Amino acid sequence: MSGQTSSEYKYIGTRSIRPDGADKVTGRANYGADFFLPGMVHGKILRSPLAHAKILSIDVSAALAMPGVLSIATSEDLPDMNAGTESAGEGEVDFYDFSCNVLAREKVLYHGQAVAAVAATSEAIARSALDKIVVDYEELTPVLDLLGAQKSDSPLLHKNQTTEGPKGKGKTPSNIAKQMMLARGNVDEGFSEADVVVEKTFISPIVHQGYIEPHACVVRTNESNQIDVWCSSQGHFMVRSFMARLLAMDVSNIKVTPLEIGGGFGGKTVIYLEPVAAILSRKAGRPVKMVMDREEVFRATGPGSSSIVKVKVGAKSDGRIVAMEADITLNAGAFKGSPMMPSMMCVFTPYTCPNMKVTGKDVVTNTPKVAAYRAPGAPQSHLAAECVVNEIAKRLNIDPIDLRLLNAVDEGSPTIYGPKFKAIGLKAALTEARSHPHYASALSDNQGRGVACGFWFNVGLQSSATINITESGKAVVITGNPDIGGSRASMALMAAESLGIPLDQIKPIIGDTESVGYNDVTGGSRTTFASGGAVIKAAENLIQDLKRRAAKLMDIDVELVQWIDGQAVAPADLDKKPLSLARLARKAGATGGPLTATATQTARGAGPSFAVNIIDVEVDKETGSVDVKRVTVLQDAGKAIHPSYVEGQMQGGAVQGIGWALNEEFVYNEKGVMENPGFLDYRIPLASDLPMIDTVIIEVPNPGHPYGVRGVGEAPICPPMAAVTSAVNDAIGCGADFQLTELPLSPVKVLDAAEKLMG
Amino acid sequence: MSGQTSSEYKYIGTRSIRPDGADKVTGRANYGADFFLPGMVHGKILRSPLAHAKILSIDVSAALAMPGVLSIATSEDLPDMNAGTESAGEGEVDFYDFSCNVLAREKVLYHGQAVAAVAATSEAIARSALDKIVVDYEELTPVLDLLGAQKSDSPLLHKNQTTEGPKGKGKTPSNIAKQMMLARGNVDEGFSEADVVVEKTFISPIVHQGYIEPHACVVRTNESNQIDVWCSSQGHFMVRSFMARLLAMDVSNIKVTPLEIGGGFGGKTVIYLEPVAAILSRKAGRPVKMVMDREEVFRATGPGSSSIVKVKVGAKSDGRIVAMEADITLNAGAFKGSPMMPSMMCVFTPYTCPNMKVTGKDVVTNTPKVAAYRAPGAPQSHLAAECVVNEIAKRLNIDPIDLRLLNAVDEGSPTIYGPKFKAIGLKAALTEARSHPHYASALSDNQGRGVACGFWFNVGLQSSATINITESGKAVVITGNPDIGGSRASMALMAAESLGIPLDQIKPIIGDTESVGYNDVTGGSRTTFASGGAVIKAAENLIQDLKRRAAKLMDIDVELVQWIDGQAVAPADLDKKPLSLARLARKAGATGGPLTATATQTARGAGPSFAVNIIDVEVDKETGSVDVKRVTVLQDAGKAIHPSYVEGQMQGGAVQGIGWALNEEFVYNEKGVMENPGFLDYRIPLASDLPMIDTVIIEVPNPGHPYGVRGVGEAPICPPMAAVTSAVNDAIGCGADFQLTELPLSPVKVLDAAEKLMG
Repeated sequence: MSGQTSSEYKYIGTRSIRPDGADKVTGRANYGADFFLPGMVHGKILRSPLAHAKILSIDVSAALAMPGVLSIATSEDLPDMNAGTESAGEGEVDFYDFSCNVLAREKVLYHGQAVAAVAATSEAIARSALDKIVVDYEELTPVLDLLGAQKSDSPLLHKNQTTEGPKGKGKTPSNIAKQMMLARGNVDEGFSEADVVVEKTFISPIVHQGYIEPHACVVRTNESNQIDVWCSSQGHFMVRSFMARLLAMDVSNIKVTPLEIGGGFGGKTVIYLEPVAAILSRKAGRPVKMVMDREEVFRATGPGSSSIVKVKVGAKSDGRIVAMEADITLNAGAFKGSPMMPSMMCVFTPYTCPNMKVTGKDVVTNTPKVAAYRAPGAPQSHLAAECVVNEIAKRLNIDPIDLRLLNAVDEGSPTIYGPKFKAIGLKAALTEARSHPHYASALSDNQGRGVACGFWFNVGLQSSATINITESGKAVVITGNPDIGGSRASMALMAAESLGIPLDQIKPIIGDTESVGYNDVTGGSRTTFASGGAVIKAAENLIQDLKRRAAKLMDIDVELVQWIDGQAVAPADLDKKPLSLARLARKAGATGGPLTATATQTARGAGPSFAVNIIDVEVDKETGSVDVKRVTVLQDAGKAIHPSYVEGQMQGGAVQGIGWALNEEFVYNEKGVMENPGFLDYRIPLASDLPMIDTVIIEVPNPGHPYGVRGVGEAPICPPMAAVTSAVNDAIGCGADFQLTELPLSPVKVLDAAEKLMG
Repeated sequence: MSGQTSSEYKYIGTRSIRPDGADKVTGRANYGADFFLPGMVHGKILRSPLAHAKILSIDVSAALAMPGVLSIATSEDLPDMNAGTESAGEGEVDFYDFSCNVLAREKVLYHGQAVAAVAATSEAIARSALDKIVVDYEELTPVLDLLGAQKSDSPLLHKNQTTEGPKGKGKTPSNIAKQMMLARGNVDEGFSEADVVVEKTFISPIVHQGYIEPHACVVRTNESNQIDVWCSSQGHFMVRSFMARLLAMDVSNIKVTPLEIGGGFGGKTVIYLEPVAAILSRKAGRPVKMVMDREEVFRATGPGSSSIVKVKVGAKSDGRIVAMEADITLNAGAFKGSPMMPSMMCVFTPYTCPNMKVTGKDVVTNTPKVAAYRAPGAPQSHLAAECVVNEIAKRLNIDPIDLRLLNAVDEGSPTIYGPKFKAIGLKAALTEARSHPHYASALSDNQGRGVACGFWFNVGLQSSATINITESGKAVVITGNPDIGGSRASMALMAAESLGIPLDQIKPIIGDTESVGYNDVTGGSRTTFASGGAVIKAAENLIQDLKRRAAKLMDIDVELVQWIDGQAVAPADLDKKPLSLARLARKAGATGGPLTATATQTARGAGPSFAVNIIDVEVDKETGSVDVKRVTVLQDAGKAIHPSYVEGQMQGGAVQGIGWALNEEFVYNEKGVMENPGFLDYRIPLASDLPMIDTVIIEVPNPGHPYGVRGVGEAPICPPMAAVTSAVNDAIGCGADFQLTELPLSPVKVLDAAEKLMG
C-alpha cells in the first residue's frame, strides 16, 4: 500500500464516534417525514394513469368543493418557463422540462407523472379529493423500448425535440435528445494493429437507487411570500435554487432547513414535491406536508438509466490494448438528460490505450425522468468495457489483473476528456488485488470469479464553512451539505486536525441556507473533499486571528507566534506561557470580540478514484440462482478521513452494484405501467443475500487537498456489475465468450445460458 | 437641531417596511409559547406559599407515582454551586444565588419562589401533581420594608451575607449586600457656597416591566446530553451561557434557537424556566414545554427595584449648581444585585456641578430578585434628582430648562464614573425643548407642567455578524441578538447603506447560537450600535473581497477598483463595465467560491444618550386622579437608523415611566404575598389613558460608530417619573416644596396632598 499512514495525523484516520450517532440510534433524528408544524395540512398528488397522453382538460371543481380541501395545484399555478438548457450546480437543467416533471403540462409522459395536487386537512380527505379531479386524456402509444424509441417511425414524446448529431447535422424530430463523441488517437488504425478484437453489447435495465427514506417535505408560505422549507435532500441550497427557478422567485425569499437524509445516492439531487407544496401552501394559507409512499418513489422519482452499451476492444497478443470503442445509449426517461456524458468520460479511463472513440446517445422514453445514481452512467458503461476486457484476457490467456496492470493509467496518463492524471491509485489497487488472499483462493464447482475496475472522476464545486468559537473555547463547525455519508464526522476530524484540538471540542453542524455561505449539492463525491477543504481554510483563517490575538496578549510580534497543538506558542527564549484556544476564547472580549472565521472556495483538484473488485459467485445449476460467495473491494480513497465511513461507502457501492447485476429492474407492461413498484417485487439485496464484504483502502493522497482527500462514494459502484457478470459467465463455463450480457442476471436467464452451453 | 441629516444617506434614516412585519401582523411569528415538538410534555412549577421559610423536606413520591407524571425536579438535581460573584455579560452574577432562584435550596426567600417542578403528559396532570408534592417548611418572619431590612434587629435572609461598607469596615451579618460611593470635588465645600439648598427623599415601589409575553420555553435533551432550547429571551447566547453554568455543562452542548420576543425591557436578560425544563426533559426522555402564566410572571420573575433616594442639591442664586449629593437605596429582592451602580452613575450625570457625592446601598428583602428594567436604576434616582432640581428652579425663579442649560454637560465634560463625554446632545435637546410649541402653550386650571432630563450611558460589548450572498446576489445578514426593537430592520438598513444595494436585496436573519458568532445579551441599548457595527464591518470585509474578484474579472489592479452604489467600478479611462453585486455573485464560482463575510467586535465608543420630557397633567381635585394631557419627548438618538422604531422607543419609554409614576406598584400584604398579580389590579397605562406622545429626535452622531448610532431604548424612561411628579406637584400648587414624593401618585395620595395644601 502506498500513501500516507494514519500516524502522520492525530485525529484524521481515527474511527471516531459519530456525532450524530445517538440521535440516529434513538430515533430522535428528524428525517423528511418526521417534521411537522402547527396548523399543517396534507398534500397529495394526482398521478397519471397513462404512460403517454395529451391532457385535454383538468376539472378540479368537485374536488375543491369537498369539505376539508383547502387548495389544489396544477401546472397552471407554475410560472411559464422557457425551454432551454441552463447549467445548475453539477449539471445542466432544462427548466421547462423540470416544471413539467413537477406538474404535467399539455402531455403526460410516464405513468405516475404528477398531474395535480390537493391540500386537505387530512391525508384521507386529500386522497378522496384526488378521485374527484376529472382529467380528460387523449391516449397516445407509449414508447418504452430504448432501441425502438430511436426509430424514425416511433411516436415522439416531444414535438420540438430534434436529433442533434455529434457533427451538428440531422435536425429531424426525434426521441434522441443528444448525441456526442469523445475520441483520441485513431481507433481504425488501432484495431488494424490488434491481434485480438472482442466486440459485444451489454444491456442494463432501469434501476432505482432504493434509498430507504421516501421524499418528504413541509413547506410554509407566509403572507409576504416568504417560503420556509424543511426537507430531506442531497443539498438544501439545490432545493432553494430549483424552487426559486421553478416558482420564479428570488432565492433569498426561500429558506431551506435540511432534515436528516435516509439515503439519496444521487436520487435526491432533484426535487419533486417542494414546489407543489409551496403552491398548495400559498393557496391554503397553511403549512403543507407532502410525503411520497414507496409506490410513488418507484413510479415518479428519478431512477438510474437503462442502457445499451456496445464495446469493442482490440489488443496485441502481449496484452497491450491498442483500440477501444464504445457506443453508449442511455435512457433519459421522459425528459432529456441521461448521464450520457459521465458514462462516456468514465468507460475507458482506467486504460492508457492510445486509440479510443466513445459515442453517446441520450434517448427519451415514456418512463420516469432519470436522476443521478451513484457515479451516474459509469456502472452501465463499465459493465460492458470491463466484461470485454475480461474476455480479451481470457482469449490471450493473461490474468485479468495482470492485463489491467499492463494497461493501467498512472500519474501523467492522459484522459479522454482532457486533463492528465496527477497521483492516482489504480496500479496500487490492482497490485493489492493481485496479491490479496482472496485472489489466490480456490474456487469450488459451479463457482466463478470476476474482476473489474471502475473509475469516477469526482468533482469540486463551491463550498463554504464557518467556525464559531464558543466562550469556553469549543469550535462549532458549520457546513452546508446534508450529512449523507458521515460529513459531520469527517468535518469534525479535519477541524480537530487543523486546529490541533481534541475531537470532543468540536461540534459539527449542518447549517440551513441562511446560516452558512452557499454550498453546491452533495454529488460527485465532493463534500469531504470540497466542503472539508473549506473547513480547513476556515481553521487556517481562525488560527491567523488567534495568533494575532495571542501576540497582543503576549506583547510580542505576531510573526513570532506559532500555533502548535491547539495553543499559541512563543519562542522558548521569550519565556511566555502558551495560550490555549480556551484561554484565548475567554479573552476574546478583550482582544477584539468573538472568535469566528469563514472560508469559501470553488474547489479545484478533485482527486479521481479507482476501485477494483474481486467477486466470487456460485450458480445453482438447477435453479439458475446466483449466490455471491466472496467480495473484496479495493479502492484508492485518497486519505481516509474516517476509515469506517470509507469502508461503508465501499461496501454500500458494492452491494448496490451486486443488486443491479443480479436482481434489480423496473418491470414494465406494454402500457408502460411499472409492475413491481415495491420492495417485495423490486428486490434489493438483503444482508442475508450477501457475504461480509471485505474492503482494502488504498491511500494515495490527492495532491489537490491539504489532507489528500479524494471522493469515495461513487467509484465503488463502478466495478461490481462487470465483476459479477464476469463471475457468473465464468461459473457457467462461458470461457472467452460471455453469454450472459443482459442484466439482471435473473435465474431464468442464467439457467437458459447454462443449458445452452451444455447444449 | 445639530448633527447629520438623513439626506447624507440613501437607506439609513428611511422608514422602511419591517422585514418581520407580515409574520407578526398575521400571527405567524412564533413567540415563546407558540413552539412545540413531537412527544413534548408539559412542565409546571411548585411555588413557595411563604415569603420566608426554611425548607425542612420535600417529598415527591406521591406526585411521581401519579399516572402521566414523567419526571420531577428539585434543587437536588442542580449541580452544587459555589457562592461568589462572577462577571457575566453586562453585569455580575452569583451563580449560587442564581441556582437557588431557579429552584430553592434550604430556604425560600419570597412568595412564589420555585421549589420543585413536574413534567407530565398534560398541563392538568402536571398541576395536579404539584398538589401531591409535600414540602415541610419552617416559617420565618418576612422582611418586606426596605428601611426595616437594614436595621440590626431585622430577620436575615442570608446567614453568610455581611455588610461591606464603602470603606471596607463593618463585616456584620446584614441584609445590606453592598454599599458603594462615587464622588468628585468636595460636596461640603460646595454646599457651603450654595445660596439655596434643597434636600428631599423620593420613594418608588417595586414595578414590573409588564412585557406582554410571559416566559416560555421548550427544551429537549437527547441521550448524549445535548440540549436544544427554543425560547424567548433578550439573548439566546445569554440563555446558553447561564444554562451551561447552572447545569455544569459546556456551552457547546447547548443550542438555543431564539423565538420572537413579546417584550423584555431587561426582564428577559435572565432565565428561570430553561434549566428546570432541561432537568425535567433529561429525566423524562421527552421534550418539555414550560410556560408561565401572568401570576407567575408577577410573583416570580425579576421586577424593577423599589427605591428610597435622598437627594440634596445646592445652587448659587444665578442658577449654577455647586453641590449635589444622593443617597440611593435599591431593593435587590431576595438575592443581592440591584442596579445600584448604574443608578449611582446616572443620577447627576446631566450636570456639570463640580462637587458630587453619591452613595448606594443594595438591600435584600423577601420579594422576587429584581432584574434589569430599562435603564436599570436610573429612573429611580432621576426621579429624586430631577424633582429636586425643579424645586431649586422654583426657589430661584429660573425656568427649569434654562437652569438645566446653564448646568448641562457637553462635549468634554467629565462624568462621575470616569470618562469625559465626546459629542453629546443634552444641550441640543434642552434647547429644542425650550423652543418647542408645547413649552410655550398655556396650562388650564388644575393643570401642571413638569420637565426633566435623563441619562443613560449605553454599552458596547461583543457582537458578531455574517453576510452570506446568495447565488442571485442578495445579502443574507445574520446577527445574533433577538429582534427586540426592530433590529432586523436596522441591520438591513445599515447593510444596505454599507453595501450600496437596495433594501429589498437584504434579508436580515437572527441566527441561533450555532449559526453565528457569539453575541452578548441585548441590554444597555447595545444592539443597533454594537451588532450594527459588526454588520458594517462584515459589509466592509465583503466589499474588499468583491473588489478583489472584480479586479480579477476586469483584469486590473485591485487598488483601482472602487465600490460605488453596489457596483465594482474601474477608473473611467480603463473602459471597463461596472460589475454589480448580482453579477459578481453569479461569477462567484469562477472567482474563488461563494461570497460570504463575517466580522466580530468588542464594541468601543458607545454613545451616551440624553432624553428630555415636557409633561402636562391635569388633576381632578375631587378624586385625585391624574390625567396626562400632553407629553413631548426629546432625545439625542445619535443617527436614527429607522426613525419610526426610534420614536417607538421614545414613546414606549415615556409610557412606562408614566405608568411607574402614576399607577404601577407591587402591593404586598404583611405575609409578603403580592395582592395584585394581574393586569387588572397591576395597572399599566392603556392607550386610552394617554395622549399621543410627541417625539423630537435630536441627531448628534456618536463619533464612536460609523453611522453615528447611539443606543435609544433606555434613556427615554429616565425623565418621565420626575416630569410627571413635578407636573402633579405643580398642578396641586406645591410651589417650590413638592409634597408628593412617593410613587405611584395614586388618587388617594394626590387627594391627600391637595387637601393638605388647601389646609
